[in-house]
Amino acid sequence: MPHTLPSFDDILAAAARIAPHAHTTPVLHSRELDELAGCSLFFKAEPLQRSGAFKFRGACNAVWSLPEADARRGVVTHSSGNHGGALALAARTRGIPCHVVVPEGAVAAKLASIQRYGATIHRCAPTQAAREAACARVQAETGAQLIHPFTHPAVIAGQGTAILELHNSHGAFDAVMTPVGGGGLSTGTAIATARVAPDCRIYAAEPTGADDTARSLVAGRRVDAFTPDTICDGLRTLVGEPNFAALRQHGVQVLVADDAETISAMRLLWQCLKLVVEPSSALVLAALLKHRGRFAGQRVGLVLSGGNVDLDALPWGPA
Amino acid sequence: MPHTLPSFDDILAAAARIAPHAHTTPVLHSRELDELAGCSLFFKAEPLQRSGAFKFRGACNAVWSLPEADARRGVVTHSSGNHGGALALAARTRGIPCHVVVPEGAVAAKLASIQRYGATIHRCAPTQAAREAACARVQAETGAQLIHPFTHPAVIAGQGTAILELHNSHGAFDAVMTPVGGGGLSTGTAIATARVAPDCRIYAAEPTGADDTARSLVAGRRVDAFTPDTICDGLRTLVGEPNFAALRQHGVQVLVADDAETISAMRLLWQCLKLVVEPSSALVLAALLKHRGRFAGQRVGLVLSGGNVDLDALPWGPA
Repeated sequence: MPHTLPSFDDILAAAARIAPHAHTTPVLHSRELDELAGCSLFFKAEPLQRSGAFKFRGACNAVWSLPEADARRGVVTHSSGNHGGALALAARTRGIPCHVVVPEGAVAAKLASIQRYGATIHRCAPTQAAREAACARVQAETGAQLIHPFTHPAVIAGQGTAILELHNSHGAFDAVMTPVGGGGLSTGTAIATARVAPDCRIYAAEPTGADDTARSLVAGRRVDAFTPDTICDGLRTLVGEPNFAALRQHGVQVLVADDAETISAMRLLWQCLKLVVEPSSALVLAALLKHRGRFAGQRVGLVLSGGNVDLDALPWGPA
Repeated sequence: MPHTLPSFDDILAAAARIAPHAHTTPVLHSRELDELAGCSLFFKAEPLQRSGAFKFRGACNAVWSLPEADARRGVVTHSSGNHGGALALAARTRGIPCHVVVPEGAVAAKLASIQRYGATIHRCAPTQAAREAACARVQAETGAQLIHPFTHPAVIAGQGTAILELHNSHGAFDAVMTPVGGGGLSTGTAIATARVAPDCRIYAAEPTGADDTARSLVAGRRVDAFTPDTICDGLRTLVGEPNFAALRQHGVQVLVADDAETISAMRLLWQCLKLVVEPSSALVLAALLKHRGRFAGQRVGLVLSGGNVDLDALPWGPA
C-alpha cells in the first residue's frame, strides 16, 4: 500500500465530508483539574463522538471517500476495538457491507459495538501476521476495500478534524496533546496543528508499557521489537511507518506515563469532568500531570480519545 | 417563610443573572437508547453543570439576587449533598461566607465538594427537625440568609433555567421529565414549560421508596408520613408545600421506578452517553423505560440532574 500522507486540505475536505454524519463534540474544562495541573486544560470530549471514540471521524471519511463501485463491495479492517466499531457504523451510514477481523482478547464492550453496528466479525489470533492474513483472505473473497486503522490517508485526514475543531473553538494553545498508538490521531493532529497554529507545541502521550514511538524517536528510526504490556488497550500497536515519519517531521514530542498514573488520571476525569473515558484517553492527563513543569501557566488542548470501557471491570477496586 | 412561587419572568431574569457564572450544558442523545425506548430522547446533561449538578443554577440565582447588605452576612442552608456544594460554590462566586448544615450519612463525594468550595460545615442528626434547628442557630449567630434547597422562590426560578435551555435548543417536545425530591427542579420545569410549550406534557420521576409526591397527588393533599428508602440519595426529601401546589396546578404526572430499575438505567446512561450520572438522574430514564408505552414515537426532553457519585461504591458489582 502506498504510504502517502494527507495534506491540510485533505483534513478540511474530511471535515466537510463527515459533517452530515459525525458530531461536533463538546470541549470540557474543570477548574479543579486546572488547579491540579497548574495550567488551563481544554478537553475535546471524543467519548461523545458517535461509536464512542474519535475513530468514527477517520472511518467515516474513508467510507465516504470511496467511489461508488468500490463502496458497493464493502470495507474490511482489523481492529482490537474502536476502529472496528467505528468502521462498522460508518459503513452503515452508507449502507455498505463491513468486515472486521478481531484478535482474541479484545474488550467485550468494543466487540459488542462492532456486532451491534451490523459488521461481520472474523476472529483471529492476536498477532499482526494473523490479522493481516485474515484481512487478505476477506479482501480476496469479497473484493472489500481495506481501511487500515491508522496508515490509510483518509483515516488520518478524518482524525485530524478533532484537533481542527478544538483549535477553532478554543484556539491560541501553547501546546496540544493526544495519545499515540498506531499514530492516526497524532499524525492528523500534527498536520492540522502545524498549519493552523505553527507556534503550538505538539505532544503525544504513550504508555510506558508500549513506548515504541518514544524509543523510535530516540533511535531515529522505527523500532519494531515490541511486546506491549499496558492497560491502554487502544494503544497496544506499533506506530505506523508513515505516521512515524510525520511525527518526526513535525517535531512531535512523546511523553510517557505508566498504568498506575493512567488509572489515577482516569478516576480524576470521571470525577471532575463526569465523562466516562477509557484508559487510552486518561493517559494524556497522566502524561500532562507527570510533566506539568513544561506546561505551567499555559493553555493546553487535549484530545480524550474514547469512552468504551467494560463497566464491570473498572481498574480501581472498591474502597 | 412566605411560600411564594416564581413567575415565568423570574425564570427569564434568573437565566440572565446566572449567565456569567453557570454553564449552558450540552444536550446528549443516543440512537441506542432511542431504539430501546421507542422514542426520541434529549438529555440535558446537568452533570456537566458547575458543581456537577443543576443545583448550581438555583443557588447561584439566590446568591446573586441578595441585596449587598444581606449578601455580606453570608448564606446558610441544610443539604445532604448537591445543594450544599452548589451554594458553597455560588457564594464563592460572590465572595461571601457560606454555612452548610449536613446530616450524618451524606455521600462522601458531595461532602468533599462542600469543603472544597470553602463552606463552613455544621454536622447534625439526619432528621428534618435537627436540620432546621441547626440552620436557625447559624442564622441567629451570623445573620446569614437561609437559602432553602427547594422552596426558595429564587432557587426554583434558577432551576427552571435548565428546561428553558432545553426547550430553546431542541424544542417541540411532546413531553418533558425531571426527577422530583423536594420539587425545586420539577416546579421550575413546570412553570417554564407551561409558558413556552403549553401542549407539552410534564412528568416527574420519583423512586418507589420515596414516592410521597405520587401518593400526595392521589390523596389530593401533601402526605407527610415518610420514611425514605432508596438509592437516590438526592430524592430522600418530602416534596415542599409550594412545590406540591405548583405541581398540582400544572397537572404534572408522577411516574415511579424502583432502585433495581434505576441501577440498570444508570449503567445504560454511563455506557451509551459516556456520562457519569448519579442514581437520582438515572431514575428519569428508568421511569421512562418502565412506562414507555406513553411515549411511543414521541420527542421527550429529560433533565439528568447530577453526576456526583462515589466511584468506589458503584451500585453494580463486578461481573
